[in-house]
Amino acid sequence: MSIDPARLQPMANAIRALSMDAVQAANSGHPGMPMGMADVATVLFDRHLKFDPARPDWADRDRFVLSAGHGSMLIYSLLHLSGYARPTMEDIRNFRQLGSPCAGHPENFLLEAVECTTGPLGQGLAMAVGMAMAERHLNAVFGDDLVDHRTYAIAGDGCLMEGINHEAIGLAGHLNLGRLIVLWDDNAITIDGPTDLSTSENIKARYEATGWHVVSCDGHDFADIDRAIEEAKADPRPSLIDCKTVIGKGAPSKQGTSATHGAPLGEDEIAAAREELGWDAEPFVIPDDILANWRSTGERGHEAIGAWETRLNESGQADEFNRRMAGELPHGDAMREYVASLIANPVKIATRKASEMALAEINPRLPDTIGGSADLTGSNNTKAGGLEPFTADNYAGRYVYYGIREFGMAAAMNGMALHGGVIPYGGTFLVFTDYARGAIRLSALQQARVIYVMTHDSIGLGEDGPTHQPIEHLASLRAMPNLLVLRPADAVETAEAWEIALKQEGRPSVLALSRQGLPQLRTEMADENLSARGGYVLREADGDRQVTIIASGSETHVALECADRLADKGISAAVVSMVSTELFDEQDDDYRARVLGEGGLRVSIEAASTFGWERYIATSEYPRGLAIGLDRFGASAPAPDLFEKFGITADAIVPQILDTLKA
Amino acid sequence: MSIDPARLQPMANAIRALSMDAVQAANSGHPGMPMGMADVATVLFDRHLKFDPARPDWADRDRFVLSAGHGSMLIYSLLHLSGYARPTMEDIRNFRQLGSPCAGHPENFLLEAVECTTGPLGQGLAMAVGMAMAERHLNAVFGDDLVDHRTYAIAGDGCLMEGINHEAIGLAGHLNLGRLIVLWDDNAITIDGPTDLSTSENIKARYEATGWHVVSCDGHDFADIDRAIEEAKADPRPSLIDCKTVIGKGAPSKQGTSATHGAPLGEDEIAAAREELGWDAEPFVIPDDILANWRSTGERGHEAIGAWETRLNESGQADEFNRRMAGELPHGDAMREYVASLIANPVKIATRKASEMALAEINPRLPDTIGGSADLTGSNNTKAGGLEPFTADNYAGRYVYYGIREFGMAAAMNGMALHGGVIPYGGTFLVFTDYARGAIRLSALQQARVIYVMTHDSIGLGEDGPTHQPIEHLASLRAMPNLLVLRPADAVETAEAWEIALKQEGRPSVLALSRQGLPQLRTEMADENLSARGGYVLREADGDRQVTIIASGSETHVALECADRLADKGISAAVVSMVSTELFDEQDDDYRARVLGEGGLRVSIEAASTFGWERYIATSEYPRGLAIGLDRFGASAPAPDLFEKFGITADAIVPQILDTLKA
Repeated sequence: MSIDPARLQPMANAIRALSMDAVQAANSGHPGMPMGMADVATVLFDRHLKFDPARPDWADRDRFVLSAGHGSMLIYSLLHLSGYARPTMEDIRNFRQLGSPCAGHPENFLLEAVECTTGPLGQGLAMAVGMAMAERHLNAVFGDDLVDHRTYAIAGDGCLMEGINHEAIGLAGHLNLGRLIVLWDDNAITIDGPTDLSTSENIKARYEATGWHVVSCDGHDFADIDRAIEEAKADPRPSLIDCKTVIGKGAPSKQGTSATHGAPLGEDEIAAAREELGWDAEPFVIPDDILANWRSTGERGHEAIGAWETRLNESGQADEFNRRMAGELPHGDAMREYVASLIANPVKIATRKASEMALAEINPRLPDTIGGSADLTGSNNTKAGGLEPFTADNYAGRYVYYGIREFGMAAAMNGMALHGGVIPYGGTFLVFTDYARGAIRLSALQQARVIYVMTHDSIGLGEDGPTHQPIEHLASLRAMPNLLVLRPADAVETAEAWEIALKQEGRPSVLALSRQGLPQLRTEMADENLSARGGYVLREADGDRQVTIIASGSETHVALECADRLADKGISAAVVSMVSTELFDEQDDDYRARVLGEGGLRVSIEAASTFGWERYIATSEYPRGLAIGLDRFGASAPAPDLFEKFGITADAIVPQILDTLKA
Repeated sequence: MSIDPARLQPMANAIRALSMDAVQAANSGHPGMPMGMADVATVLFDRHLKFDPARPDWADRDRFVLSAGHGSMLIYSLLHLSGYARPTMEDIRNFRQLGSPCAGHPENFLLEAVECTTGPLGQGLAMAVGMAMAERHLNAVFGDDLVDHRTYAIAGDGCLMEGINHEAIGLAGHLNLGRLIVLWDDNAITIDGPTDLSTSENIKARYEATGWHVVSCDGHDFADIDRAIEEAKADPRPSLIDCKTVIGKGAPSKQGTSATHGAPLGEDEIAAAREELGWDAEPFVIPDDILANWRSTGERGHEAIGAWETRLNESGQADEFNRRMAGELPHGDAMREYVASLIANPVKIATRKASEMALAEINPRLPDTIGGSADLTGSNNTKAGGLEPFTADNYAGRYVYYGIREFGMAAAMNGMALHGGVIPYGGTFLVFTDYARGAIRLSALQQARVIYVMTHDSIGLGEDGPTHQPIEHLASLRAMPNLLVLRPADAVETAEAWEIALKQEGRPSVLALSRQGLPQLRTEMADENLSARGGYVLREADGDRQVTIIASGSETHVALECADRLADKGISAAVVSMVSTELFDEQDDDYRARVLGEGGLRVSIEAASTFGWERYIATSEYPRGLAIGLDRFGASAPAPDLFEKFGITADAIVPQILDTLKA
């Protein structure tokens, strides 16, 4: 089918009209980007994107990511016009209003066809890299018949300036993700004004330097756009298409300026734009012929699905493929057998090592996992269970050498999890969650099953000193909604933490793991995964509780030592292992009260900021409780010296407990 | 003076010997990088760097940044050998031990000649960009006679892979910071192995695409190193010197491999290296002739200081120059007059707007400030008081268009603050502290006076939705040591917050500011800056307190409304404005008890995570207090709808207070 501007132009103008009208109605939003990229998006949907509006969950659909998420009216327009059930026109009328799925930025949990939540710049593109990785991996596992799709991302100048862009394209170039195509909305405008206010970069040369194929087009010439996309599809490398566009195209007096970026155009300008575009339909009305053309865009995909389903059913792989795409775990309880083996033969090891042992059990049984590390493989102990590297030559591999790209790694993992079919986990030091925090937040917001293996979780890492010693990180991650933080105390709890993390279908997890060796505290087989309660009584007091000591991770054995010493002085103390405050908060009142104890003094011990512990230690008798921790930066020295210096030892803590009891 | 390898080689080998011996003694550390870059560093210090070991505080010294901070023995060796008072050889013997200033990574607060703390990769280079910016600015203000120095940074492959590298070099290229020279330790090795495990990038082409001058050298050929540095100095652009090196150079069986990166070489390999290098001195002993050559390296700088001091004294600018470099504020109390004007004419405005008004007072009076924004100038309201843009053509300007580079901006501000002579402030949305968090932490650790202007500080930003609405950010920043978080409630508190932030010589501040308009709550002139106490009684209860409502920022007026309604029901409630929990925690027990009230129920109100508020609301009578907040992600809608939806209104809160009192 040849390019027919007479057909395409009104289709593109429908996007422009919806975008400017919705932003005007909301009196809030970003018309410039959707109007500028309307022509490119129309060609993409009409002639290239493989999708079926009736089947947004089709596993082999092309993925479309609007990395420049502020231009959300572009994707809402595209989804509505091409015939998805949602958003309806009513949804679009309620753009940015309470309850509308047409939120200010596209949210994957509000609209099924929104592949990922975007808005924090650069991350959409970086998630697209992860989607393209998942696609190639599943292709290698299940074959061309079942998995053979592309990932398209629309990115703006902002996405390309963010640091994560460098990490994402570096990874994509190295992995030669040829089925990833980035459409750059090259309008040379940012919020503050022309891009030359802040950058002088030759972006195309930078992408080429990173192993990408680069092609340019006039973003308002349908044939030229089509040619560029064809070239990109034909090239074996990942492609950047430099789409030269005019921001706010169609708004006669404002187009090409930052005035169109983030504010309604105003009634007068909209009227002038209607004139300019020859668009005489009322707001939120799409003429039938134009709508019919839009509705035809999904036909290619609709036809493809039939053939694809036949292939799936004949492949002999349908059950396993469907299980993986549904995100279900295989049956079996291997983890319980593994825990039994630990109980039988206790080990004194670092929990990062215990994590490696757990992974050695998990990875051979669960083909869904794709592990990796941001250049700390030997320190994070993430390569286990015989995983082979995932490389440009071997996409069947399941271990990613992410390089020194923490943010890029986290965003790629989000993309993989959202693509489906894989469960990504990746490691760095806990302190460097700071580098990846923007993506960790999107894991949580997007309800993505991503597992962060964060080792070296306290001053217990020793000599590397304060730049490498997390202090505020546990608190800062616990404060984040919908994120599980799990800090296991020994090898058994580490296995339990892995089991919990893998089962979180709608929630990411951070495993905070020690560098240093820790004694095994759990030496009896329990009936259940005790860590799944968040906190539990590791050792009950002998007699009525006078003290309840609550600790996590590497300080739990210190808590037990404190309890021993208190017992020697005739004071009965219980010890609670608090693996996850979030899971504990989810337990019922009775359970929590039983665990924490109603009477006496509560003491928390954690080699980290005490911020937030008051929630668990305040009682009527001792409203401030006693919070043992570290409300300052650490220092460089061997770990035992640091625990002593900072008073995270039974020697230092027991007298404080006694003083508090006396007071 | 011509290049004399016979002189330089033993000097470089002294670095190698100290590095391998210190790491071995500590049984911890990174010998590979110092051994690989010993030759380059020797040429730099011997022939180029302008410094005087007797005067580490000399304002016009060249700045030297070891961005690859794990190679800390390189800088400790250089400083000791060239004759700085610290580190002593005893300090080096105690490398990585408690109390030694030779910490695992270089810390600016432990050694005067360490310009900045490095270790978190990429940030040293990005801080070097800030230092080079400060240098050019002060040069433009004070002239070539007083300010005329270079900034050198040694960066590794890790620094160049991190996303912040992209942001930093983009900024430096755009600003054409020709006096910045980056020495890239191109050893093609990372922790996980050869760099080609994870990257295929043409780094030189990437730097060239960003406006940099690039030159290469053999990092073990003294003449070639010298040639490359000369070329870099001669070029008007910022320069990257690709130093081809062998990691662990001199360790015969391990050099060139990741085995030398992060572990002691072992006694046998060290013995073999001594043989290879012809180094027969005992550990921690430097032969006199070699030491004498090292001690001569500071002579150039020492001579230059005399002439420079003469110029300074004759410049007529000495007092102002010295004031600025000492980081002292000018005398005067203009802020008090400004507050008086607000009291006289109350305003209902967003605190971001109030911040702009405060800046309009500050910037004309305080020439030290350099403002900016990561492409949100009009939203952050950071450009005020007539600041002109800081550009390649006008380094005298004081407003930086940082572009969409939050992390790069924050790190550049650290570099500026550490350079001295300027007080940087910069803006983005509070939610995007996540992008800059790694650098905010280094502001805190390095005790740098950097002011973060973080607007759109809650769901009060409205329609942009959950990706843009901070929830956990206040808590996560409060948990960070040595960081002030200030969340003012109105225009008066905003002015006070600015005054507080500017006076923090050893601490960064985050100003959390509203997008939405807020009524002015402070309408009487106080004797002091009330916000400086962190929290204070904004309105005392009528009679004995039954309830104390503690609020911050945009929720403080809601607290007052709640108190009014409680009063209508005969319940006496006081309202505490909690501008900064950190400052409040620093007050004495009596003050805090007086403000929070000893009896009754305490209620906190903040449109954010409740995490951490228990510290202030737990009492014997109500150990859990009542924490009103938002422990979930926000939503996209107009702000009033969101406050209602999430129950942050007097309508929703007062009944909960009544219920709690009854219970």
